[in-house]
Amino acid sequence: MLNEHKKGENYSIYLLIKSAEKRMTSKSSPYIRLTLTDRSGEIQANLWDASEEDVANYVPGKVVYLNVLQDEYQSKPQLKIQEIRLANETEPSDPSLYEISSPVSKKELQSQINDLLFQITNPTWNRVVRNILNKYADKYYEYPAAEKIHHAYRGGLAFHSLSIAKLALAVSDLYPQINRSLLLAGALLHDIGKTKELSGPVGTEYTTEGQLLGHIVIGDEIIVQAAEELGFDLNSEDMLLLRHLILSHHNKLEFGSPIQPRELEAFVLSKLDDLDSHIQLITTTVNKTSAGNFSEKIFAADNQAYYRPKTDLSEKSDQNDD
Amino acid sequence: MLNEHKKGENYSIYLLIKSAEKRMTSKSSPYIRLTLTDRSGEIQANLWDASEEDVANYVPGKVVYLNVLQDEYQSKPQLKIQEIRLANETEPSDPSLYEISSPVSKKELQSQINDLLFQITNPTWNRVVRNILNKYADKYYEYPAAEKIHHAYRGGLAFHSLSIAKLALAVSDLYPQINRSLLLAGALLHDIGKTKELSGPVGTEYTTEGQLLGHIVIGDEIIVQAAEELGFDLNSEDMLLLRHLILSHHNKLEFGSPIQPRELEAFVLSKLDDLDSHIQLITTTVNKTSAGNFSEKIFAADNQAYYRPKTDLSEKSDQNDD
Amino acid sequence: MLNEHKKGENYSIYLLIKSAEKRMTSKSSPYIRLTLTDRSGEIQANLWDASEEDVANYVPGKVVYLNVLQDEYQSKPQLKIQEIRLANETEPSDPSLYEISSPVSKKELQSQINDLLFQITNPTWNRVVRNILNKYADKYYEYPAAEKIHHAYRGGLAFHSLSIAKLALAVSDLYPQINRSLLLAGALLHDIGKTKELSGPVGTEYTTEGQLLGHIVIGDEIIVQAAEELGFDLNSEDMLLLRHLILSHHNKLEFGSPIQPRELEAFVLSKLDDLDSHIQLITTTVNKTSAGNFSEKIFAADNQAYYRPKTDLSEKSDQNDD
Amino acid sequence: MLNEHKKGENYSIYLLIKSAEKRMTSKSSPYIRLTLTDRSGEIQANLWDASEEDVANYVPGKVVYLNVLQDEYQSKPQLKIQEIRLANETEPSDPSLYEISSPVSKKELQSQINDLLFQITNPTWNRVVRNILNKYADKYYEYPAAEKIHHAYRGGLAFHSLSIAKLALAVSDLYPQINRSLLLAGALLHDIGKTKELSGPVGTEYTTEGQLLGHIVIGDEIIVQAAEELGFDLNSEDMLLLRHLILSHHNKLEFGSPIQPRELEAFVLSKLDDLDSHIQLITTTVNKTSAGNFSEKIFAADNQAYYRPKTDLSEKSDQNDD
Amino acid sequence: MLNEHKKGENYSIYLLIKSAEKRMTSKSSPYIRLTLTDRSGEIQANLWDASEEDVANYVPGKVVYLNVLQDEYQSKPQLKIQEIRLANETEPSDPSLYEISSPVSKKELQSQINDLLFQITNPTWNRVVRNILNKYADKYYEYPAAEKIHHAYRGGLAFHSLSIAKLALAVSDLYPQINRSLLLAGALLHDIGKTKELSGPVGTEYTTEGQLLGHIVIGDEIIVQAAEELGFDLNSEDMLLLRHLILSHHNKLEFGSPIQPRELEAFVLSKLDDLDSHIQLITTTVNKTSAGNFSEKIFAADNQAYYRPKTDLSEKSDQNDD
Amino acid sequence: MLNEHKKGENYSIYLLIKSAEKRMTSKSSPYIRLTLTDRSGEIQANLWDASEEDVANYVPGKVVYLNVLQDEYQSKPQLKIQEIRLANETEPSDPSLYEISSPVSKKELQSQINDLLFQITNPTWNRVVRNILNKYADKYYEYPAAEKIHHAYRGGLAFHSLSIAKLALAVSDLYPQINRSLLLAGALLHDIGKTKELSGPVGTEYTTEGQLLGHIVIGDEIIVQAAEELGFDLNSEDMLLLRHLILSHHNKLEFGSPIQPRELEAFVLSKLDDLDSHIQLITTTVNKTSAGNFSEKIFAADNQAYYRPKTDLSEKSDQNDD
Repeated sequence: MLNEHKKGENYSIYLLIKSAEKRMTSKSSPYIRLTLTDRSGEIQANLWDASEEDVANYVPGKVVYLNVLQDEYQSKPQLKIQEIRLANETEPSDPSLYEISSPVSKKELQSQINDLLFQITNPTWNRVVRNILNKYADKYYEYPAAEKIHHAYRGGLAFHSLSIAKLALAVSDLYPQINRSLLLAGALLHDIGKTKELSGPVGTEYTTEGQLLGHIVIGDEIIVQAAEELGFDLNSEDMLLLRHLILSHHNKLEFGSPIQPRELEAFVLSKLDDLDSHIQLITTTVNKTSAGNFSEKIFAADNQAYYRPKTDLSEKSDQNDD
Repeated sequence: MLNEHKKGENYSIYLLIKSAEKRMTSKSSPYIRLTLTDRSGEIQANLWDASEEDVANYVPGKVVYLNVLQDEYQSKPQLKIQEIRLANETEPSDPSLYEISSPVSKKELQSQINDLLFQITNPTWNRVVRNILNKYADKYYEYPAAEKIHHAYRGGLAFHSLSIAKLALAVSDLYPQINRSLLLAGALLHDIGKTKELSGPVGTEYTTEGQLLGHIVIGDEIIVQAAEELGFDLNSEDMLLLRHLILSHHNKLEFGSPIQPRELEAFVLSKLDDLDSHIQLITTTVNKTSAGNFSEKIFAADNQAYYRPKTDLSEKSDQNDD
Repeated sequence: MLNEHKKGENYSIYLLIKSAEKRMTSKSSPYIRLTLTDRSGEIQANLWDASEEDVANYVPGKVVYLNVLQDEYQSKPQLKIQEIRLANETEPSDPSLYEISSPVSKKELQSQINDLLFQITNPTWNRVVRNILNKYADKYYEYPAAEKIHHAYRGGLAFHSLSIAKLALAVSDLYPQINRSLLLAGALLHDIGKTKELSGPVGTEYTTEGQLLGHIVIGDEIIVQAAEELGFDLNSEDMLLLRHLILSHHNKLEFGSPIQPRELEAFVLSKLDDLDSHIQLITTTVNKTSAGNFSEKIFAADNQAYYRPKTDLSEKSDQNDD
Repeated sequence: MLNEHKKGENYSIYLLIKSAEKRMTSKSSPYIRLTLTDRSGEIQANLWDASEEDVANYVPGKVVYLNVLQDEYQSKPQLKIQEIRLANETEPSDPSLYEISSPVSKKELQSQINDLLFQITNPTWNRVVRNILNKYADKYYEYPAAEKIHHAYRGGLAFHSLSIAKLALAVSDLYPQINRSLLLAGALLHDIGKTKELSGPVGTEYTTEGQLLGHIVIGDEIIVQAAEELGFDLNSEDMLLLRHLILSHHNKLEFGSPIQPRELEAFVLSKLDDLDSHIQLITTTVNKTSAGNFSEKIFAADNQAYYRPKTDLSEKSDQNDD
Repeated sequence: MLNEHKKGENYSIYLLIKSAEKRMTSKSSPYIRLTLTDRSGEIQANLWDASEEDVANYVPGKVVYLNVLQDEYQSKPQLKIQEIRLANETEPSDPSLYEISSPVSKKELQSQINDLLFQITNPTWNRVVRNILNKYADKYYEYPAAEKIHHAYRGGLAFHSLSIAKLALAVSDLYPQINRSLLLAGALLHDIGKTKELSGPVGTEYTTEGQLLGHIVIGDEIIVQAAEELGFDLNSEDMLLLRHLILSHHNKLEFGSPIQPRELEAFVLSKLDDLDSHIQLITTTVNKTSAGNFSEKIFAADNQAYYRPKTDLSEKSDQNDD
Repeated sequence: MLNEHKKGENYSIYLLIKSAEKRMTSKSSPYIRLTLTDRSGEIQANLWDASEEDVANYVPGKVVYLNVLQDEYQSKPQLKIQEIRLANETEPSDPSLYEISSPVSKKELQSQINDLLFQITNPTWNRVVRNILNKYADKYYEYPAAEKIHHAYRGGLAFHSLSIAKLALAVSDLYPQINRSLLLAGALLHDIGKTKELSGPVGTEYTTEGQLLGHIVIGDEIIVQAAEELGFDLNSEDMLLLRHLILSHHNKLEFGSPIQPRELEAFVLSKLDDLDSHIQLITTTVNKTSAGNFSEKIFAADNQAYYRPKTDLSEKSDQNDD
């Protein structure tokens, strides 16, 4: 694994090509800027004097065998390539072996979400959620929750939805005025539009549809279609409320919601979405920082640098709970 | 007509009750604050010592006969009521005689819009527009374009849409890179969601659906349904572009568009909508001001007071054109 | 109780005077604008032709006996006073019988918070919290959490702190990277400065100290003093982190935090504070609205009106849990 | 022409030097970064190992003969220079042959604008416009409308003014309350201050005067001087209105207008200026994008990327109009 | 003097009518809302059952004799009028005896400003300032500096200019890099446009010219005219800098400057203007507050309430200086 | 001195290493990017093919002997190193000989500030200031006022405080309502928290404490501790006011003050701080610009470029004062 090596070391390794950009040196000699990854992290390497064949071979999604010298460039690790070739079939050439993915397995995600469905006791919302999760199961459990920033990995969409659903359970336990069914349904469906806004789990980018409509409106369209299939009245309060939760989940107009939360569960959903995505984003960023230091500035967290305490707070907490 | 009378005059008149609010004096005596209107304007009057019967009779939508003394309260005209009774059937008691409505008749609106449809030469957009205008004809030609602020009168929605469509023709003549069909289709449909967001032409208020979904998302839903009825592919570029125009026509996220304009015709539509609504708003407000003075501040026009020139600029302009 | 009566009814009742403002009619006759309250709500009444003695007697904090006719003024309920006198000692004249207060009793608040202290396993934070809660117990369990807006009632400060502490437990269960001790300590102490910023549970207003320093800085000062008493090093990470949580709990500089959250638990605390205060605020406001309608606009919730669903969502939810 | 060649091709060409920046390689070897242009576009090239003589010769405004190999650097076309020399007098060495300029010839611009003057029927405004266009004719028909962003080419100022004037005609036809004379006069003069704010059509930059006063105040000064020459009363309504149109044409204070529009024609002018400049900017940017893709983000258009539809909308539109 | 009387007192007094607004009671009986003033303050009074003659007589600018009972309305002092008549010529009927005006006499203002002119050693700036102060002397020493808010009294313009000029002297003494001549010239001329933007020292309102052009552009026009009279080159650095100081003195575009400060003295002038106007505004507001309390919120000072310390800080300071 | 040499010159010089960053060329050859400084300015140089020993030797804080050729890179001066070695003890190897520092010597700063203390005639404030300046003397006279931007040099904190104190004297002379003692005390202490927020005069960076608490809260803590040592009542008006001045000196919440100025002297202090820091910042930036040109844009001065007049305004001013 990448994170077992350090600067100055010479080693051989299989890695997945995440991106490959053809560039030229200032003297017009072509090279490829490779971003290589396994589950422990990612690293950059330049393939100098790249031939046309190299450009054709070394593309995103391919696994390569490398012999490298680990170096550093502008205070980030970098590989000096001494040998490179495509991995063959007898080698570990399956890309899924190298991808960062949800910390919970797809099977586990499905199992936990299926269990949660029983807590959506309102039959309208329950059937809409089941209808959609069935139709979009392939994408729902494979897509990331974003192109980058947070939960940007295979399974991120379902993992993020599940995390919010768990928060929803906890919050509706503490506040009896909150309707658990509605909040759960909203939690599981809020980002369903991302299955069309994004291109997929690998080399994720925005689709044309995604850029012209946005995942919030696409999500609303998916819910409307489910209601029509199920013969539910679009003007019923149940449908208006569920749609309102999805439409308002970015909380403010300037964040892309066409309507702000105007109902208690809609407000709470928007806040839980914000809470989970930021906890994930801050944790990921702080984990790259050494103890006692501040991370790089996190643009999506008010551009603040976050402190990683000297003491491992999570560890200490665990011990203390014993 | 109201605008033929002035302060100090005693006269009899038929007027439509636009609003009637039951209030109490500081000494707890009940009275009704009436807003009365005919096509030339509106005025306020207090009906003192109102009985329960008065409260039951004098409600919005009723035409009343009045004998009044015109006075002024806080520098606005006000009527002192000397006699009031409901108009009977032999009198001009039809509310539509008193309502401010579109400066163009419903028939004329329909005729002009039908003519414009032939300029939408793209068959997809043409059929979607025809499908929707047929289905929503009743409301499209009767609804106002807003609860208040601009085009807030019977027929305002169609009149506003037609005005933008005419601007669209002029602009696409001047800029060949603009697609006339797309811009026209967008102009005619951009506010179609208001037929469900608003309650109707009289006593207009927001519906629950309007407040929870907003007219932009409702309009998108109407277009999606039309496409499904017509068997058009929702993923075709034609449909994506038309939906994008409707979704982005408020121009900025903070004005309620879930997506900003990302296509030329979408950008132009959003600007023509803004232009027409402000010209109408400024004109209406300035017309209430005497020449050589500044109007009240117009909140929706950056909270500026607008100047009414001493010279009647429109008149002079007309003469000069001869 | 006030909420058992309606418009048109004549009845006798004991109420607490919450505010009494001497005014004059436009004809210079003095009267007192009274705001009267019991645990079920509050109402206004004007005491006409008020004598100097009336002005001296009917002051905030006094309980009065009234015979009234319930009326309405500008669509809000109002009482016409037919008889008024101070309640005497044989009557229910203890103000605390009429005050809205925390939904949980003081004793219960103390008990629950004391239990939570055992979950703060870090000894530094545990001792700081205990030191402060001991010293400030009188005020901590009596003060409101705000002058108005949310938790503005006797015991509101402790109730709000406890609610956040419960959220903190739930969230730290779901995210192992969060330190439960730190988050709990922050939850319990975050608003401790309000014990000096506000004047007390009755007729709450800002103190001079509160207006010149603000509760965030006062809270930090209280923690620094506790650390000094306990002999803790102010430069230790434990102390820096705890102070950082209090200082940053308004999340953004423009909301009065001198520093934004730059540590995970600090971020989470700021979000839980925001979540609990808004749930309380929205619930209180929506509860005043009839089903199927929108509430008045809530300034502190982005100036949105909130919808009260026709179906009682909380009730249905409860049933379903059985 | 540049746009007839592609990557990998070897060819000879005459080009105009638009900018020439002396730089050093990381190893301190001097080179010149050239931006070269003809009417079909522009391209970059590095002249390696540049001598002092090269630095002296190859300066903006010179035409050069080149033999080149067309390559690509960071996904943009770039020329590898194989031979370079200044064009001599027997060759096409006149810079005006290579400059991008107004799509309408200077003569045509003058002719169209002169025709428009007859539609300014108010004698005051007519004479002020004629006085200024006569005095500033040299610069008015040669200057760009901006240093960069939109209409940044020879003749851009007059072309932009003419476009707005045509919009002004169309809009005043549709809205009779708009004074055509005033709007036309404002359209033609609104950016007159740019003749002093900018340095000229080639190598355009801001003058010191432009940076310390701004084109809006300079434009006002030009109008005041014209009025004084013509003996018009500066306090007449005609002069106040014309000056107000120029002063307020950036619409908002934060865009540099010292006063916001407070008169109908002033409001309309500001919106037409905004409309024309954005249509030009979006069109230019989208034209650089291939069909079915999004352009680079346009900072001055809310930082949005614009979509170039797969179907050529303008072409189809034209056909359909037949 | 007004400030010698208090609530409950019956007394006779001469006062100047500052404003007189005709109103009606809710029962349509006419009355006049008078604002009455002398140099010690101002107070309101309602003249009930006002006749047409009263309306004609009691207008702003007139001095009246009153017999009154001092009362309070909504916690502000108010007079109950027992007798009122116009002051006759044998009485103190000269309005200037009652007006709040500059704390320094007109003569003293002129003398101090004339002395300062000698410190403008640059001949261009010196002559421009002298030219303008001579031409506008009548208005410069009589006009207020604003319609309301700060220095809103006769002589306020000159007093405010003089205060800034004194600050300018002090600051240029402390920072040798600051040019005293330029800063002084800017200080004395920065608000010269107010002589046309405002209507005059009594019943001050904005002129049409003021609303359509604004005092910044008018001030620039006055300087340009002075330069033309004196034969100075408008393109000289001296003239550009002086104009830049006037144009940029509101510091930010959103405050109405068409250009932001881009030169050191321009920056300093904008800050000294801000400092002096706020010190005057805060002082005036705090002086109306009793010791140990907070003033009303001051909109133009970030909407903060200001504290008046219990100890008289200014007094103590003076003693300590002995 | 560095500023005595120019491009193309070959010379020997002693310089202090301000920063040394290890980098790699695109071909992975290591080099050191050095920033070298003496009191006349700073310059960059790359040490190519750097050995591990070089990396160990050439670190910030070391003085080096160099033989260089002065060149230019991207229009900034750069040194080509021909020889480099550490300065030995017989050479001028004391870093303090090369550092930019306060324009006033430490001794002079102490002397002037000590003199000013006598003008703080209020005994509470006088003793608090003396207590703190005594305890923090080492840091107060050595620390910079900022990490970068303004007064970012040894002694900058005291120099900046002294400059504001001098402004405070001048302003309190002009406005008798201002308390000189309070304003002076605030001026001298306002940035005292920087002694803990910053790491020191060399290689200045933010401490962990600085990043988690901020200098405003730290400064407040320092004052509270001084008051406790001196036995002053924290609730006395004197202490509340002094703390308020420190807490509010950033003027607005979004600039990090937990409370906005709500007292006259607090407002004035915040404005004088702003004025002095900007004059210093603009002057430093403009001094790097040649006459008749605009500086680089200054982010902290509204991102404006500042003009350096052709005429030396400061010089002329000085002459004129004779």
